[in-house]
Amino acid sequence: MTYALGRRVLAEGIGTALLLATVVGSGIMAERLSGGNIALALLGNALATGSMLIVLITVFGPISGAHFNPAVTLIFAIRRDISPPHSIAYVGAQGMGAMSGVWLAHAMFDEPLLQVSHHIRTGPSQWLSEGIATFGLVFVILATLRARADFIAVAVGLYITAAYWFTASTSFANPAVTLARSLSDSFAGIRPVDAPAFIAAQIAGALMAYAVCAWLLKPETEHTAP
Amino acid sequence: MTYALGRRVLAEGIGTALLLATVVGSGIMAERLSGGNIALALLGNALATGSMLIVLITVFGPISGAHFNPAVTLIFAIRRDISPPHSIAYVGAQGMGAMSGVWLAHAMFDEPLLQVSHHIRTGPSQWLSEGIATFGLVFVILATLRARADFIAVAVGLYITAAYWFTASTSFANPAVTLARSLSDSFAGIRPVDAPAFIAAQIAGALMAYAVCAWLLKPETEHTAP
Amino acid sequence: MTYALGRRVLAEGIGTALLLATVVGSGIMAERLSGGNIALALLGNALATGSMLIVLITVFGPISGAHFNPAVTLIFAIRRDISPPHSIAYVGAQGMGAMSGVWLAHAMFDEPLLQVSHHIRTGPSQWLSEGIATFGLVFVILATLRARADFIAVAVGLYITAAYWFTASTSFANPAVTLARSLSDSFAGIRPVDAPAFIAAQIAGALMAYAVCAWLLKPETEHTAP
Amino acid sequence: MTYALGRRVLAEGIGTALLLATVVGSGIMAERLSGGNIALALLGNALATGSMLIVLITVFGPISGAHFNPAVTLIFAIRRDISPPHSIAYVGAQGMGAMSGVWLAHAMFDEPLLQVSHHIRTGPSQWLSEGIATFGLVFVILATLRARADFIAVAVGLYITAAYWFTASTSFANPAVTLARSLSDSFAGIRPVDAPAFIAAQIAGALMAYAVCAWLLKPETEHTAP
Repeated sequence: MTYALGRRVLAEGIGTALLLATVVGSGIMAERLSGGNIALALLGNALATGSMLIVLITVFGPISGAHFNPAVTLIFAIRRDISPPHSIAYVGAQGMGAMSGVWLAHAMFDEPLLQVSHHIRTGPSQWLSEGIATFGLVFVILATLRARADFIAVAVGLYITAAYWFTASTSFANPAVTLARSLSDSFAGIRPVDAPAFIAAQIAGALMAYAVCAWLLKPETEHTAP
Repeated sequence: MTYALGRRVLAEGIGTALLLATVVGSGIMAERLSGGNIALALLGNALATGSMLIVLITVFGPISGAHFNPAVTLIFAIRRDISPPHSIAYVGAQGMGAMSGVWLAHAMFDEPLLQVSHHIRTGPSQWLSEGIATFGLVFVILATLRARADFIAVAVGLYITAAYWFTASTSFANPAVTLARSLSDSFAGIRPVDAPAFIAAQIAGALMAYAVCAWLLKPETEHTAP
Repeated sequence: MTYALGRRVLAEGIGTALLLATVVGSGIMAERLSGGNIALALLGNALATGSMLIVLITVFGPISGAHFNPAVTLIFAIRRDISPPHSIAYVGAQGMGAMSGVWLAHAMFDEPLLQVSHHIRTGPSQWLSEGIATFGLVFVILATLRARADFIAVAVGLYITAAYWFTASTSFANPAVTLARSLSDSFAGIRPVDAPAFIAAQIAGALMAYAVCAWLLKPETEHTAP
Repeated sequence: MTYALGRRVLAEGIGTALLLATVVGSGIMAERLSGGNIALALLGNALATGSMLIVLITVFGPISGAHFNPAVTLIFAIRRDISPPHSIAYVGAQGMGAMSGVWLAHAMFDEPLLQVSHHIRTGPSQWLSEGIATFGLVFVILATLRARADFIAVAVGLYITAAYWFTASTSFANPAVTLARSLSDSFAGIRPVDAPAFIAAQIAGALMAYAVCAWLLKPETEHTAP
């Protein structure tokens, strides 16, 4: 099946909006209910985000590929799986979807729609975390696509669940997510001034994963049958 | 396989009863054990509900389609997947099953069977939450049916797990569930006076999902082979 | 593949031992670490038990059918899926395996091997809980066997995860488990004097599930191809 | 598909590094956030490790077999699934990967790279725990390979999630992991002096699982078709 560009772009937009509504909404819920225990808040936040990613990638994968992430779209553009103009449309939809999702979460939780985050997230260890987080994400996507494409939704969802816990930055791993989360002064937020370094680290991690996969995933012999 | 209407209606009734026994029972258990930490209670409640949904949809899907939800039955009736008289039988079974499930939970936890909730759940942000929650649920059902029907039980279970956390209303997303939960003065309850607005928001969300899917899920070209 | 009776019986024994080591071991771990928060303890206990059940049923299913439960073996004997003498061997292995598993957990956690539980679990609401829990378990097994046999390990694991939370008794749902847990004076224990009523309720629930399934799961028409 | 030894060894190294970064990183995160509640910390640690194992085995399985564990490589060498020289290369890569992963976690969390653990983990009940944990791990691998090879990533991930809870040692079950965790003075650490007994217990458990499986998994008759 192939879908018209309009449908694919809308799919990217709705999917990224639902992803951000989940990340920010569950962050607000977790923060409100957890009585200051951040581990418990992160548990709820990770469970919701991971579960939703599995659902969204399953649902939107057949339509748009379910990127929801400019770093992922960049890698697919480099691989020529998507044309440059289409990539630009995708990234635009991801950005607008992400911001809409944040505002939707604010509306659902009766918070002011327009906010700016004061959550400080900076320093080399945070940037390293984002680089590793995005390296892992792109690696998982490219390797699972090759090894077992029908498992990619589950693999990405479980990866992000783990990455919320094992990286010091709780794994934004996505430039559109980073930008949008700078617009929420909640658990999931990031100061706008801290966003560019996060995004640079994410893109560096994504490119490194692409390079490693380009070499690592080449078998010497292939099966002829699937 | 096709099943006689009697079996299908009973399947809807038993399934909805077990769903409500899980929602309300795990809510009571979580409330009793969590020592006032609501995040922890929601974690137990979400884990139990999501797990049970996966099981129930797997088990009853081949018999009745595993709607368990008048909003879902409404959408399938609009799509002419189910006839109007059968829909009415389904909705009746869902309603009776849901109430039976609540009473079963009360009996298991040694609570008075007949209760009326005093849990206030009202206001535009709650209604928006229910609209979004049900939009998402119906969207996930229609899109997964098209993209990967054998994954629908897992997709719905994970979606509701996430939706318990990312919506301010903890996602009732189901008129029969809403009605039945008005009959439990526990963690999961909702005041009867608050139920109609929830149900209206749920139906609005379901219809919106139907409309979006009707446009979005139309591919330009289809594979001829599966 | 068919396996010799000796292998099948040993599989039942090892599987039930590992199941009980998990139930009791994770209960002790959870109790020790949770600082008195029982909701948190139940979360760890449920997560461990549900995960392990999925693994054990996957691993031992092809060898012995992975009953691990005299109530399940009884139902399969009634269905003539297993002969009476084999059933008796199965139940014996389950009982000995279950006790071994409890003692193994005690050894791992440096507790006295031989204990007797003082955990009071009695009263009509507890018995109702056990009846419902076992009804649900047998229902899930019989219906999933028919609807989607390759999903049975996941279905049972998720069902028990939910049932730990939605029944007031935390779902023993298994006579061998009940007997063995009477030998552990820990989180998961049950007084020996309370065990017979639990077991009676479990058998009643199992038989009721068998009867309901015998009627409910009969389609009017069958596919000829899978 | 077959991959060149260089690729396979690198896959073992990267995979083991990401596994250790997850174990140690999520341990540090959990310890920092949980406010001293160890059950909560173990929940985050287990969720992250189990999820990541499913991802890593899915991703690296087709390349290297995804051992990540000298005890597993030993068993496959005994079964002649891997040659002795290749085994040695694998174990070297696992060791170096594991240490790199620990240092990566330290870097991400702004901790001194080089540490030595002071976490005491010793005594017969700990050793028994490690023996059982590794027995179970190797048993699950060998039996799932035979019964349902495409489920092995999920089975191992769920097994380790359970084993974090049901063994008193929280299941290292891996000599490379044990060695590397002796280099982290955090939640997940183990004193270097305690490591050799852990490793001995792990190898004993692995060999016992091999022996049991060699007898238990032999069916009397086989299907000719899959």
